[in-house]
Amino acid sequence: MFALNVRDHIMIAHSFKGEVFGPAQKLHGATFVIDLELHRNDLDPNGIVADIGALSGLLHEVLAPLNYQNLDELEAFRGRNTTTEVLACEIAERVRARILEGALGEDAQQALDGLKVTLSESHIAWASYQTSLVRTG
Amino acid sequence: MFALNVRDHIMIAHSFKGEVFGPAQKLHGATFVIDLELHRNDLDPNGIVADIGALSGLLHEVLAPLNYQNLDELEAFRGRNTTTEVLACEIAERVRARILEGALGEDAQQALDGLKVTLSESHIAWASYQTSLVRTG
Amino acid sequence: MFALNVRDHIMIAHSFKGEVFGPAQKLHGATFVIDLELHRNDLDPNGIVADIGALSGLLHEVLAPLNYQNLDELEAFRGRNTTTEVLACEIAERVRARILEGALGEDAQQALDGLKVTLSESHIAWASYQTSLVRTG
Amino acid sequence: MFALNVRDHIMIAHSFKGEVFGPAQKLHGATFVIDLELHRNDLDPNGIVADIGALSGLLHEVLAPLNYQNLDELEAFRGRNTTTEVLACEIAERVRARILEGALGEDAQQALDGLKVTLSESHIAWASYQTSLVRTG
Amino acid sequence: MFALNVRDHIMIAHSFKGEVFGPAQKLHGATFVIDLELHRNDLDPNGIVADIGALSGLLHEVLAPLNYQNLDELEAFRGRNTTTEVLACEIAERVRARILEGALGEDAQQALDGLKVTLSESHIAWASYQTSLVRTG
Amino acid sequence: MFALNVRDHIMIAHSFKGEVFGPAQKLHGATFVIDLELHRNDLDPNGIVADIGALSGLLHEVLAPLNYQNLDELEAFRGRNTTTEVLACEIAERVRARILEGALGEDAQQALDGLKVTLSESHIAWASYQTSLVRTG
Repeated sequence: MFALNVRDHIMIAHSFKGEVFGPAQKLHGATFVIDLELHRNDLDPNGIVADIGALSGLLHEVLAPLNYQNLDELEAFRGRNTTTEVLACEIAERVRARILEGALGEDAQQALDGLKVTLSESHIAWASYQTSLVRTG
Repeated sequence: MFALNVRDHIMIAHSFKGEVFGPAQKLHGATFVIDLELHRNDLDPNGIVADIGALSGLLHEVLAPLNYQNLDELEAFRGRNTTTEVLACEIAERVRARILEGALGEDAQQALDGLKVTLSESHIAWASYQTSLVRTG
Repeated sequence: MFALNVRDHIMIAHSFKGEVFGPAQKLHGATFVIDLELHRNDLDPNGIVADIGALSGLLHEVLAPLNYQNLDELEAFRGRNTTTEVLACEIAERVRARILEGALGEDAQQALDGLKVTLSESHIAWASYQTSLVRTG
Repeated sequence: MFALNVRDHIMIAHSFKGEVFGPAQKLHGATFVIDLELHRNDLDPNGIVADIGALSGLLHEVLAPLNYQNLDELEAFRGRNTTTEVLACEIAERVRARILEGALGEDAQQALDGLKVTLSESHIAWASYQTSLVRTG
Repeated sequence: MFALNVRDHIMIAHSFKGEVFGPAQKLHGATFVIDLELHRNDLDPNGIVADIGALSGLLHEVLAPLNYQNLDELEAFRGRNTTTEVLACEIAERVRARILEGALGEDAQQALDGLKVTLSESHIAWASYQTSLVRTG
Repeated sequence: MFALNVRDHIMIAHSFKGEVFGPAQKLHGATFVIDLELHRNDLDPNGIVADIGALSGLLHEVLAPLNYQNLDELEAFRGRNTTTEVLACEIAERVRARILEGALGEDAQQALDGLKVTLSESHIAWASYQTSLVRTG
């Protein structure tokens, strides 16, 4: 099994609902350093999991609508806490949808097995979400 | 699959028995930077794997009896080498027991799938132990 | 010349005024990983620059009123952009004042030569402010 | 499941064939920071996955013929792009072969379950290859 | 004194002349992770050392003619070893010249005191060059 | 001003005398990741601060008598606390003495301006000692 990982980041504001969050119920913010990892059983004819330039571009494109935002005001997260875990899942699902639309080319669309998104919120805490890229039909 | 990771550290003295350890058979020591990662299939209603504050507290509580100790003198390790691997396992099992006792709350107690503990002994070497949190009965 | 450094972090929301900031004029946020470094010509009789436990506690105490805040709402920053540079300076000055009040003990109060505060806003950008601890009179 | 990881690096020149590589079709180079991770279900009687000194030595031995080379000139890679993914696989296979020959001792030869090789090509991109160490017969 | 740092990287091939370089006399390569740090006594009216977006852009612009190159073929380095130290100096001088031409704006052109360029060639080795930005006349 | 840095590490046991050290008065231990940085105004004819291979070798040689030791038993530290600061100074002085004896060659012996040794005791704490290499006579 092969994996390929690229890194980017976003800087956002948000607040959480729920007593468990303590002081994080107030409006605060975070830098999330984001790792996007693709999984694939065999390499393509060029010897790669995916075009790393296209992959970095895809991650940047998916992050753009989140970067420099107050996530409390985004329709996509209405009624949800934008925890590190929720954001990892949301970013992974958006990347997944774009790959299945062909954003990394037809070969990657067919051959990728899964992906994992990790968000580091500090030097001592991070969360990730991993999902398969199995296609039906 | 979701994961949540927190980091802490301990500073200990110990020695090893066995020719394979060479100069590490003498009393020496280590800083272990410790990552505790929880695994969970679905998030709780707050959108989290576990309360990150409670998780950091649990890790700190589990590490306290090891920190600033000469591990050669601890009853818990009598007859065993306190290698990075053995310590990763021991810390994981202690965290696992506390979670199953409810230290992270009832929801985490029921829903967590597994955990992984990684101990970095330097910038060029680390070891980890991963275990499931499957409950019987 | 000796130096001693401890690390902590804060998670804040803020916005900037000024065209130069582009999208960062909107309310967003950041995790700042903060390094506090003390400078001293000679060690104290214990062989240290300062008590590292007291130093970590002092940094945590100085960061507490900033952590989990929307800096736009804090009186202390009224009329100023809370850029990484400005925050580095503000935190350094607050630490400096506490040291001069004796927060690290009398020996440190007399003997420390300077300090530097570095704020990392991401894996690719950081800013710092360095100042002396020269005492008059 | 236990894992043990050691780190080393190589500095190489190479070029790629294929339009997807853009400017990397020209002769350029890379530092690859290389993590070799062994997987094992149970520890040996000493409480280790493998002798960490022997493991570091094995990784260094496997990397030696690649270090300070122009990979375009090596027979082993004729007709292949020496992408980060391809090199991760090649290094993993060479390590795997040496382990199966007994380079880490008889116990490791029998008991190791798998290995993973990760090559970091920069602070923002890396690739890995994971394989099993299942023996037949 | 304030400092502001941004990070980028290049991937190059080169070889060295001189017995001291041992195997690095052969054509090999490196990833250089590059930190560009600006020094300034007082902040500008916006509360910054320089526009971080412009600074990142300037670093990227200065690195572009070096990235994905065989440095042995560049006229600029004819007769010189492109060691980590030499490259740190060359990049610093190119950045310095662009700042003095106004690439970071008139305020930065007047007020910056110095700069430092650090090139990390691996996880265990780096070199830097620091220079002033004092203007004459 | 140029700088060149190499990294190594040691794993030691020790204890401290003095109430300020709290639990660290007990026998415990540490991994110290050690950065040795040389300072020099101008490069040598090869374009380097020093031979990086010789420098890494010198650091390793200086660290060898400390590695895998209980520092409480070493004559060199009798009556002194082997704090991170004291060790940074001791290692720097030993490196300095070896450079002045010619361990890095005659050119480095004449031309180096200073050196700095940093010991990281964890991911959140480190200390350093910087000294000049000015020669008399």
